Amino acid sequence: MASWERVLEENRSRYLEDFLELLRIPSVSALPEHAGDVRRAAEWTARRLRAAGLEKVQVLETGGHPVVYAEWLHAEGKPTVLLYGHFDVQPVDPVERWTSPPFEPTIRDGRVYARGASDNKGNFVLAIFAVEAMLRVEGRLPLNVKFLLEGQEEIGSPQLPAFVASHAELLACDLAISTDGAHWSEELPSLSVGSRGLCALQIDVTGAGRDLHSGIYGGTVQNPIHALVTLLGTLRSPEGKVLVEGFYDSVRPLSAEERETFARIPHDDEAYARELGVPATFGEPGFGTLERAWVRPTLEINGIWGGFQGEGLKTVIPSEAHAKISCRLVPDQDPDEILERIRRHAERHAPPGVRVEVRDFPGRARPYVVPADLPALRVAREVVGEIYGKEPVLVCTGGTVPVLDLFRTHLGVHTVTVAFGVEDERFHAPDEFYRLANFDRGQRGYARLLERLAEVPWRG
Amino acid sequence: MASWERVLEENRSRYLEDFLELLRIPSVSALPEHAGDVRRAAEWTARRLRAAGLEKVQVLETGGHPVVYAEWLHAEGKPTVLLYGHFDVQPVDPVERWTSPPFEPTIRDGRVYARGASDNKGNFVLAIFAVEAMLRVEGRLPLNVKFLLEGQEEIGSPQLPAFVASHAELLACDLAISTDGAHWSEELPSLSVGSRGLCALQIDVTGAGRDLHSGIYGGTVQNPIHALVTLLGTLRSPEGKVLVEGFYDSVRPLSAEERETFARIPHDDEAYARELGVPATFGEPGFGTLERAWVRPTLEINGIWGGFQGEGLKTVIPSEAHAKISCRLVPDQDPDEILERIRRHAERHAPPGVRVEVRDFPGRARPYVVPADLPALRVAREVVGEIYGKEPVLVCTGGTVPVLDLFRTHLGVHTVTVAFGVEDERFHAPDEFYRLANFDRGQRGYARLLERLAEVPWRG
Repeated sequence: MASWERVLEENRSRYLEDFLELLRIPSVSALPEHAGDVRRAAEWTARRLRAAGLEKVQVLETGGHPVVYAEWLHAEGKPTVLLYGHFDVQPVDPVERWTSPPFEPTIRDGRVYARGASDNKGNFVLAIFAVEAMLRVEGRLPLNVKFLLEGQEEIGSPQLPAFVASHAELLACDLAISTDGAHWSEELPSLSVGSRGLCALQIDVTGAGRDLHSGIYGGTVQNPIHALVTLLGTLRSPEGKVLVEGFYDSVRPLSAEERETFARIPHDDEAYARELGVPATFGEPGFGTLERAWVRPTLEINGIWGGFQGEGLKTVIPSEAHAKISCRLVPDQDPDEILERIRRHAERHAPPGVRVEVRDFPGRARPYVVPADLPALRVAREVVGEIYGKEPVLVCTGGTVPVLDLFRTHLGVHTVTVAFGVEDERFHAPDEFYRLANFDRGQRGYARLLERLAEVPWRG
Repeated sequence: MASWERVLEENRSRYLEDFLELLRIPSVSALPEHAGDVRRAAEWTARRLRAAGLEKVQVLETGGHPVVYAEWLHAEGKPTVLLYGHFDVQPVDPVERWTSPPFEPTIRDGRVYARGASDNKGNFVLAIFAVEAMLRVEGRLPLNVKFLLEGQEEIGSPQLPAFVASHAELLACDLAISTDGAHWSEELPSLSVGSRGLCALQIDVTGAGRDLHSGIYGGTVQNPIHALVTLLGTLRSPEGKVLVEGFYDSVRPLSAEERETFARIPHDDEAYARELGVPATFGEPGFGTLERAWVRPTLEINGIWGGFQGEGLKTVIPSEAHAKISCRLVPDQDPDEILERIRRHAERHAPPGVRVEVRDFPGRARPYVVPADLPALRVAREVVGEIYGKEPVLVCTGGTVPVLDLFRTHLGVHTVTVAFGVEDERFHAPDEFYRLANFDRGQRGYARLLERLAEVPWRG
């Protein structure tokens, strides 16, 4: 047993108390009335980092919710690792569906129930405890460590890109480790090695200068809703394949090895459809559900509206119709290029008799994958495998994690996501929880990860 | 000059005062707070009919806004004519765009400005004045006359079908004359001989049991908006032809004579597009704008909605998407049959991975055309031609006038629409007006029409 492991055991109840204290702060970043609580969580985090022995701990302004920075940089000649996480949480609605109040953490059956327990407070504090234990025992860390903990992840980190870009020197490192993730299931540890990119746009179709009576004018002018529907119908085949010219041109073909990897991950299509309440799964022909979710790009209409939406009928030909569309992107698609392709497609397929306008949304993100041969990824697999006694599978997320692309772009480093929550822990939903078994495992996990990263020649 | 004509001239200012008095009643049927005003308009109308010498004048209940009935049935052996109109009016919004207040009738440049001036108060009171003048001079009318004036036309006459059906004996007649219409232009008198029918439905598409994150689930389940768009895309070709199987089966082909008739009506497609603010007209290939508006059926999406409609982006796959659709029908399409065809079409083309539900709306109406050889139509053409010194053109309305089908179904009679307003008099819009020149013409017109209908063997 490593000496820091004893410290962790001795301090178990104190660390748990600290964790529960953090969970009591309702740091909901989406709600303006909780802005003070997000800041309190930042200050709590800063205090805890200082107590752990970290240096130059600062709460830094971003223009929105703050970030917390800390460092320990006395391992000369050793690489520097940047640990990332977030102390803000999702809103709690519908609050009446919580068994115990979301900000009164409650332990039942070896689980801590509270908003943020698993996403992400339960993960990043473990890294702090691990560092504290190592510093207490050895007086030093095996490599250089920086922390970047933010308070706006749950609202899409709007000010983080500018912050990272303007603090690239402060955050300079050789590798980032994100604590924001989860294992595939209680039985199956996993490492997420990819996330999809994002770009989005709105299509506005305008017809007559006013809403028209569909009796008097019906049949004589283009109906903006029909025009929109016609245009949208050209974007995707009824089978679910995107028809925008060149959309798939930059998509890396799925290798036989990747397909095999995904095929090994336990997934039951019928159970998946049942859980979501759909008659069946549906998607791009030739791919399985996990492939469709992780490594195939999508084009989805997120909203559509035009004309009369009330009860009953209003016989109107509206003057406008609108749709919001977003695409999830996979390597090596570029968000700007995809937006341009969709814009050109919309121009080419613009129906007659109306005006069609395409507006991009800001907030695009490139897809991200950890290179399969990244030495740090191998280290992470080994450490997680040892901790769980089981080789982790490599998975992806279909969602977008902008911070991964940020670190690559502005710091020039890759990010390995190592977390100790589980996918079933109800992130963003009532009765979010964290397993106490993983609370213990995670502290050991982060400590070992830092040790092993210092030992092996992982710099790729 | 007919003797009644002198009476009309002598009473000109009194009749105008009466008209303005009626216009001061804000009988907006769509707004519950004006229900009392609609009833006041009914009572005013009843009083005015009594003063004119009509008999058995009654305000009758319908379950909604009331109707007014009156009769004069002493022309033994002569036919009976039922005069129809409505004393309710449209709302006045946007009220700030009126030059003078909508219920303070104002005369400017030979026009009366007020809500309802042309639609329909300005027309039906003329028929009352005409009857009064004839009764005053002769003590009798040349044929039997009944009045049915209603208070819910502007909200689609929801209770009128049941009322007409249950009062068929009271309303029994040989011909109906509707005063609810308008001439093509100030220079060109017209008679409307057709109106389109109507049927409507809603399509509801349901996917997952909750809104899904488009990153995590995007690509793996059918998106209800895409499914709806795909389904709607099968209803109409991009060129504007309805693709529902059998939709055109019962449509009477347009005769060479009809096409010629329409071609003679002055219509400028570019001016029409400019006035509506569309880049160009658009519609079913092979037909002109007037044909598309009057004698070709349509299928129009009147409303569509699903997912996120706010500012910016929400990356959601919604659990539902909806569309409202209405069809304008022409002879001999049947609303029930068309609804059934659309329902079957939707079932056949229902996209996979979602549930599709089709719900009919009540309030369907059959199309109506006045038979070209109806003797009363010939009489009306002659009278209008004499009054204006110009042969009226025969036109249609693309809209739906349910009362026409009601009279045919429940009373077994045809309806000839004879009115003295003009299409440009801003019905339903700010600054609605009525030309005083037509106020005078109309009184003579209705009187002559009654005289001539009594003289000629028009019973077809």
